[in-house]
Amino acid sequence: MTEAVLNYLTEHREEQLEALKEFLRIPSVSTDSKFKPDVRKAAQFVHDYLSKIGFEHVEIQETKGHPLVYAEWLNAGEDAPTVLVYGHYDVQPADPIELWETDPFEPTIRNGRLYARGASDDKGQVFMYLAVFEAFLKTTGKLPINVKVCIEGEEEIGSENLYELLQSKKEKFNADFAMISDSGMVTEGQPTILYGLKGFTGLEFTIHGPENDLHSGIYGGAVRNPLMAMAHVLASMKDQNEVVLVENFYDDVEPLTDDERKLMADAPSEDFVKTTGIPETVSESGYTAVEHTMARPTLEINGMFGGYQGEGTKTIIPSSATAKLTCRLVPGQDPEKIQDALVKHIEKHLPKGVTVSIEREPLSAKAYKVDPNHPLIQKAAKSYGDAFNQEAVFVRMGGSIPVVEWIDDIFKMPIVLLGFGTPDDRLHSPNESFLLENYDLGLVTIVNYLTSL
Amino acid sequence: MTEAVLNYLTEHREEQLEALKEFLRIPSVSTDSKFKPDVRKAAQFVHDYLSKIGFEHVEIQETKGHPLVYAEWLNAGEDAPTVLVYGHYDVQPADPIELWETDPFEPTIRNGRLYARGASDDKGQVFMYLAVFEAFLKTTGKLPINVKVCIEGEEEIGSENLYELLQSKKEKFNADFAMISDSGMVTEGQPTILYGLKGFTGLEFTIHGPENDLHSGIYGGAVRNPLMAMAHVLASMKDQNEVVLVENFYDDVEPLTDDERKLMADAPSEDFVKTTGIPETVSESGYTAVEHTMARPTLEINGMFGGYQGEGTKTIIPSSATAKLTCRLVPGQDPEKIQDALVKHIEKHLPKGVTVSIEREPLSAKAYKVDPNHPLIQKAAKSYGDAFNQEAVFVRMGGSIPVVEWIDDIFKMPIVLLGFGTPDDRLHSPNESFLLENYDLGLVTIVNYLTSL
Repeated sequence: MTEAVLNYLTEHREEQLEALKEFLRIPSVSTDSKFKPDVRKAAQFVHDYLSKIGFEHVEIQETKGHPLVYAEWLNAGEDAPTVLVYGHYDVQPADPIELWETDPFEPTIRNGRLYARGASDDKGQVFMYLAVFEAFLKTTGKLPINVKVCIEGEEEIGSENLYELLQSKKEKFNADFAMISDSGMVTEGQPTILYGLKGFTGLEFTIHGPENDLHSGIYGGAVRNPLMAMAHVLASMKDQNEVVLVENFYDDVEPLTDDERKLMADAPSEDFVKTTGIPETVSESGYTAVEHTMARPTLEINGMFGGYQGEGTKTIIPSSATAKLTCRLVPGQDPEKIQDALVKHIEKHLPKGVTVSIEREPLSAKAYKVDPNHPLIQKAAKSYGDAFNQEAVFVRMGGSIPVVEWIDDIFKMPIVLLGFGTPDDRLHSPNESFLLENYDLGLVTIVNYLTSL
Repeated sequence: MTEAVLNYLTEHREEQLEALKEFLRIPSVSTDSKFKPDVRKAAQFVHDYLSKIGFEHVEIQETKGHPLVYAEWLNAGEDAPTVLVYGHYDVQPADPIELWETDPFEPTIRNGRLYARGASDDKGQVFMYLAVFEAFLKTTGKLPINVKVCIEGEEEIGSENLYELLQSKKEKFNADFAMISDSGMVTEGQPTILYGLKGFTGLEFTIHGPENDLHSGIYGGAVRNPLMAMAHVLASMKDQNEVVLVENFYDDVEPLTDDERKLMADAPSEDFVKTTGIPETVSESGYTAVEHTMARPTLEINGMFGGYQGEGTKTIIPSSATAKLTCRLVPGQDPEKIQDALVKHIEKHLPKGVTVSIEREPLSAKAYKVDPNHPLIQKAAKSYGDAFNQEAVFVRMGGSIPVVEWIDDIFKMPIVLLGFGTPDDRLHSPNESFLLENYDLGLVTIVNYLTSL
């Protein structure tokens, strides 16, 4: 049975890749309101594809924000397990666009990679499930297990409406386990099972000085410069040994055990210097870069601006300065308590002579961890390892997927995090791409895994 | 004689204001290369006006950058003094344009003020000389003293080519004294003679981290964030008591004497809180806000940016962060030594894990001070005080006019700084304006001053 399915995938590879490219052409940027119609168009694509291949009760579920696509195929029998496949069809903004070699929304294949915004995160991986389901249904007329599909449009902006939807329609979304492909291998060619993810919280704050930009000669010496005030506030939040100085930040952090430190040291890890071009890595004192990215909380400034940014000089004291911050959390930390701690710190460290306004990021997520020895996890590792001819490793990752924590919270079902990205995919960056070898062998992985259950 | 001149100005007021508006309509933004043709157009306006009213040898002097307008009227006789009138026809950028109530380049009169970019700094004040010269020449057929006019187009960007020009054509520009109207009253209605100006130096620097923006979840904890590194470097340059921490910054600063402190305390000063909307003033510990703005050196961040600035969230560690800094200097300080000190400080305080590139601001100026008791200065104070019916005060100001220091350096001539701006003019800011009462009484001031010599 598997052979027929795999043959179908091979024979229809070009056709399916063309469909994926069509999906990638839609600029479904969820964070920017000007792309709202395109986000809907991408939902429609998923809806139509699932309908076409034979899914039932395919619907575009409206939310207060971007819609969610739901579909099910529940004809495998009562003894067969039911999986909830989750993914997202929305993507990150593509800016700075001038740094892309080819248009971010004109998918291009180069050197064995498919380049487009969303190719890896997450459309390429979502589409793999559509391709596999199509192959099963067209060859065998059925899927090996019962499947519920839930593809949302707000993951990149915190999945704002998802929790409420899952909570209010528990029966509809309930399953025996979940599968999510929205992550990656630690190094190329190394099958990787994620058994932990970080949580997330954030805020944006603006420091206000004079009502208008001021002449820096006339007013310099009488007025607190909001940009310098911003520098002082930010510098007070983290020291140069990468230790976060916000009071209470580390209070509830689950300590890193020696066993886990060994697991991390053993797993191959990305050569950060090589892949990112930095002169050297830095990490929290007492922890290696790998330990810090996987299992220690972080605080990062994502954007900062104020004053004159154009060509040449402009001798002003600007009226304001703004910074956007996000934190990645580990098991034990409560996102709301951390957000409160950030707000308290900013207010406490604000110098005299300026005021501040703070906009809390409305959504957040706790960190997530599952037992790597769970049979469902172990079978996934086997299928992944077999397809790529390399034993899988188990890691925790620094990224957050809010839905993982919510699924855990609402349904208590195991979540299999099976990602096919690679470190060179450049997620959230210009020239994002997906390795086509991982696409092909990933299809095999999913086929084998579903068959094994 | 003066009466006829003043009558001419009254009778031709509307006509002359229309000409000034025509001058203001030209967006002669020197710092931004896309306005290059407009800068030239503004030079042409000055040239044509001076030609029209009867000046001789009127020329547009080419430079490596924007042109300079020169003209002379030297028929007052050998016993009459010769004045070099300096001004600039270029203006600051108008952004952020959305904060202007009316178009920055469509001069509009509201509540007794003429609103436009350059209305006060410096076209309104430059035009006053054109208006006065026209009045003298049209009524008496002559000017009371010999006049050389030098109106340049690069003051807002550091007068890059002026020094060389003045130095190489000393005979041409030489005079007994200079007059410059590019400053203002300390408070509205208070004639003010500037007897000191601050110097100037600056730079722009960029901190480079990863080659591309990175996913903050995956890389947070391994990579030094350039924005946080920027915050640390900037925060290390000045403390929260407004003391600059850059090594050697204060080494050569001429101390502020008690006599001068008294002069400053006695002169009325701007109510900074009221005029700027800040919650409170801040100044270098040990100095009042007035003392700091007038006579202590400053370091200000004029612009700072990096990472995502758009709507919503983008969870990245950005590839770089940039800041633009300028310093205002006081007598004793050498601009190049200070710039070197800034560069050394940045390099010393740069954290590990990032690199830096520094772009020095190519031009700079030393501070300037003249003896307020010089007869030429005293006569200017009298004319100013008589026209406004309020005794003039003598102050030092925080702004810099590079040409003042160069004229002092090359020609050793006294420089009369007679400014007609007011604190509400909003130089370098949206909604810049010029008080028409100061325009009218300022014309009287200039007429009386020139006549008195």
